[in-house]
Amino acid sequence: MKYFAKIRFLGTGFSGFQVQPDKRTVQGELTNAFSEYFSGAVKITGCSRTDSGVHANEFCITVEAEGASTPADKLPLALAKHLPSDISLIYAKEAPCDFHPRYDCVGKEYLYRIYNARVNSPFEVDRAFFLPRIISKEGIAKMRDAARYFLGEHDFASFMASGSDVESTVRRIEYLNIEKNGDVIEIRVFANGFLYNMVRIIVGTLVEVGLGRFSVNEVEEIILAKDRSRAGMTAPASGLYLNRVDY
Amino acid sequence: MKYFAKIRFLGTGFSGFQVQPDKRTVQGELTNAFSEYFSGAVKITGCSRTDSGVHANEFCITVEAEGASTPADKLPLALAKHLPSDISLIYAKEAPCDFHPRYDCVGKEYLYRIYNARVNSPFEVDRAFFLPRIISKEGIAKMRDAARYFLGEHDFASFMASGSDVESTVRRIEYLNIEKNGDVIEIRVFANGFLYNMVRIIVGTLVEVGLGRFSVNEVEEIILAKDRSRAGMTAPASGLYLNRVDY
Repeated sequence: MKYFAKIRFLGTGFSGFQVQPDKRTVQGELTNAFSEYFSGAVKITGCSRTDSGVHANEFCITVEAEGASTPADKLPLALAKHLPSDISLIYAKEAPCDFHPRYDCVGKEYLYRIYNARVNSPFEVDRAFFLPRIISKEGIAKMRDAARYFLGEHDFASFMASGSDVESTVRRIEYLNIEKNGDVIEIRVFANGFLYNMVRIIVGTLVEVGLGRFSVNEVEEIILAKDRSRAGMTAPASGLYLNRVDY
Repeated sequence: MKYFAKIRFLGTGFSGFQVQPDKRTVQGELTNAFSEYFSGAVKITGCSRTDSGVHANEFCITVEAEGASTPADKLPLALAKHLPSDISLIYAKEAPCDFHPRYDCVGKEYLYRIYNARVNSPFEVDRAFFLPRIISKEGIAKMRDAARYFLGEHDFASFMASGSDVESTVRRIEYLNIEKNGDVIEIRVFANGFLYNMVRIIVGTLVEVGLGRFSVNEVEEIILAKDRSRAGMTAPASGLYLNRVDY
């Protein structure tokens, strides 16, 4: 049987999704939990790799377990007893044999959270990027103006960690919205695909616009430059959440 | 110098506010941090005791430190270097010598958070009461109806942990609001004072109304009975937040 499932995880305690020797990973914990539950070997495939410390409100996987017959809708409750408290299985259904959670994905939404106050909040430690320099109302407006340059299809080579190896650095961003509620800035971005560290470098660049280190117009030049060294810092992993995966 | 300060803490790692031998407490950590910063003895006084695992978005204290001369508005940033990550100092001003954070308090707001879904969320572990039995829309409406009986001045003896010793069990509740957003139920209650475990027993009783174990009208009888054994369960500490303190 092959299942499609949606999981949620708090990334703080994991060295990312993908299994690595001697590291605690989401895939590793899922493999243990499902093997235990099905009393046999299972194959877990994820919709993307994620870095250490990155979170997911919704991350999609397939679970292949030979001989398994549990109805999919029983899995969330059944697995709750086998999963650690920092991963939960929120939804499951049967999947067609040829379905692949990574290759069949048509788009993803990431959420990036910034806690912007003079002192950090105990409730936001490891769950947001703590930024003690306050971005003004005008700064937020500038970030929104700069965000418009990212919309549509572009070569995002300036927003990819150096050393990555991909066929094409062209991606299409459908939206990039910035909201501020109290001390929290939330940035939501949806694209048909993301380069390595793309969201974190876009956020880092927008933050530098908000703080006045880049002008709004410079962002257009940075995109056109196709040069990582022109863009802003890579914002920390702790603020990043995979939020939705579309098929 | 005597300071008035507002702090915020994640209660998970503490055996409550009040200092106790061989336990990690909020007051103990504050005493260490301020003593270190002022290089001398300090006296920390809190606005209330809190149980192990209870959180605070806003908790008020006074800090008495002989010979201290730091301007109050410098304290939040200065103390950030000395406090653990689960406590932050969010505001400070000078206090009159005769001010007492507990006796001068005229009212407090508590927030109680319930995570109501079939499986728990990794983001809500230790930060909400995980309730896997789903309260229906009608159940929420009944909880709101029942909440009205608590408004105003009443003898809340039914909603006090047994063994407590207080002069009077009469308190005045100004509001008790219930909101549901997605899987989270938030209950906000403001009163001129609270008995021991009062919020947690009120919430436990309202949850039992929501689940149909008590009828709406029974709540009036439970209040009039002045008998702890008539009320509902004590909801867990992890869902409780001291939210605002009025002077």
